[in-house]
Amino acid sequence: MTKRKNIAVVGATGAVGTVFLKMLEERNFPVDDLRLCASERSLGKRIKVNGVDIEIELLTSKLVEEADMVFVSASSDISHLAASMLGESDTILIDDSSAFRMNSEVPLVVPEVNAGTLDQVKNIVAIPNCSTTPLVMALKPLHDHYLIKRVIVDTYQSVSGTGSAALEELKTQTKQFLDNDFIQTNVYPHQIAFNVMPHIEPFLPNGYTREEMKMLNETRKILNLPDLNLSATCARVPVMIGHSEAVHVEFHNSVDLERSIDLLHDFPGIRVVDDPTSGLYPMPIDSEGEDDVLVGRIRSDISCDNSIAFWLASDNLRKGAALNAIQIAEEILRRKIR
Amino acid sequence: MTKRKNIAVVGATGAVGTVFLKMLEERNFPVDDLRLCASERSLGKRIKVNGVDIEIELLTSKLVEEADMVFVSASSDISHLAASMLGESDTILIDDSSAFRMNSEVPLVVPEVNAGTLDQVKNIVAIPNCSTTPLVMALKPLHDHYLIKRVIVDTYQSVSGTGSAALEELKTQTKQFLDNDFIQTNVYPHQIAFNVMPHIEPFLPNGYTREEMKMLNETRKILNLPDLNLSATCARVPVMIGHSEAVHVEFHNSVDLERSIDLLHDFPGIRVVDDPTSGLYPMPIDSEGEDDVLVGRIRSDISCDNSIAFWLASDNLRKGAALNAIQIAEEILRRKIR
Repeated sequence: MTKRKNIAVVGATGAVGTVFLKMLEERNFPVDDLRLCASERSLGKRIKVNGVDIEIELLTSKLVEEADMVFVSASSDISHLAASMLGESDTILIDDSSAFRMNSEVPLVVPEVNAGTLDQVKNIVAIPNCSTTPLVMALKPLHDHYLIKRVIVDTYQSVSGTGSAALEELKTQTKQFLDNDFIQTNVYPHQIAFNVMPHIEPFLPNGYTREEMKMLNETRKILNLPDLNLSATCARVPVMIGHSEAVHVEFHNSVDLERSIDLLHDFPGIRVVDDPTSGLYPMPIDSEGEDDVLVGRIRSDISCDNSIAFWLASDNLRKGAALNAIQIAEEILRRKIR
Repeated sequence: MTKRKNIAVVGATGAVGTVFLKMLEERNFPVDDLRLCASERSLGKRIKVNGVDIEIELLTSKLVEEADMVFVSASSDISHLAASMLGESDTILIDDSSAFRMNSEVPLVVPEVNAGTLDQVKNIVAIPNCSTTPLVMALKPLHDHYLIKRVIVDTYQSVSGTGSAALEELKTQTKQFLDNDFIQTNVYPHQIAFNVMPHIEPFLPNGYTREEMKMLNETRKILNLPDLNLSATCARVPVMIGHSEAVHVEFHNSVDLERSIDLLHDFPGIRVVDDPTSGLYPMPIDSEGEDDVLVGRIRSDISCDNSIAFWLASDNLRKGAALNAIQIAEEILRRKIR
């Protein structure tokens, strides 16, 4: 029988933290002691998990050291703070920020894709960005057979990727729009209701955003393809939950379309939803609440030999964050790493 | 002085027709007699244009023959019907449907790009699809200098591209969503409010939609590049007006980024909106009501040599339809074709 674990959740009141707690319940994760942290304004608040009311407390070194695993989904600053509290403990930080993702000593893990890298874990495991995870899920089975040469990916990302405040902002602005009221912006630099913003994370000198460069660099690391060619445009769309991506992939080898569909179909965590003439294709509203990455519209890309194009949708709070984190924790138990 | 023309507008009550009438006024188009047609349910309705109330009438051969130019924005069936009414007349049909676009005897015109093809017009000029027009506007100045090899384009298209009923559907569904009511679908096969649908126009045997194949075939025709490689994914987003596109272009020749930006900047009908660190980039809400195609996020595409990536937004009812039509009519006058 699996030894039950002491778990701490930092960012427990956030969009991802909330889903993480739901998933602990859903998946019967063997928790012994569960402790919840959030920012000062949530102090004293109580959250019910598995029927037990748990009080929000502040993040401390003692709390980190007493936990077997700490899941952090707040900001990079909080992740750095939590990491600095690890001390000589055996605690494993499962981190949802970008703070440690590109650190060569930190495994960046999507369990279906590269669980093996967990065997090298010291104290920190990083979770990829919510737009990278579904992409590498779809690329992995294809790459294993055909060797990827170049990827073009353009995203349609939901506001929940920004957090709870952005969900409220989209709702509020939508009401203001329908009521012909002045539209207030707070979380985003521009109105997001009934708009599209090709701007996620700050802009870098090469004209790409940090989000777009994450897709390149994280995909390279996860697939262990340091020279992979990938270009992304990341856009925010007025959707609550669920990131969608239009993907065009060129391979080194000749690609068989039917075989590609089978490869995707057989890959754990992917559900092929691809009967377009019956109106079946991935959509964010259908991905919401689902664990699987939905992949469809799979077709030979007519602009290039050895290429396919497809479309995916994935719950950015689940596989894009909380689910992937729990799967990592489960894998750590399974591999008896701690 | 320009002779004033007899103009008929078919689809005068529709989303594009309404903008067309506004543009006749805005641009002081030299109209003598203006006649408006719509479907039977609008018969007898009156629309004020340039201060004059005009009654909606049915489309007839007599009406077509008496006009110098007929602008049609309804369905392909209506366009075929209007074309069948041309008889031996000199009337020019400026057609917004896909009915005649790929007909080799019909010029498919974006005036800034290929106005010269109007000299071959017989009785019909076709307007490209609203996702093609802004794309060819941006590709033309780049192609003239660097020769396009391959284009990948993924679109974020507004509901007004479907028509007035879709605008109502998005509003209604949005209210239903906010009120936690049952969400009714009528125009689209799925909920469009707070969703993305990778489905515009019917699916074809090659897995692309008709909309996506229009982008390929119309771009080939307009740029006179019958072998152009282009792959599109067209998606509908919950935006009222304004289509956005993420574009990745590979060229035969070595590309200079600064020169590319200058080329776009100097091209009539394009406005470069590209100061991302100041929050300036094209967005559909900023394109609404504007004549220019907004182009920004122009950068070297890091996935391939000789490539650039950019983002555009364009009012699909204006440059995507009504404005382009008026510009064609103006060009017909300027060239004294009729």
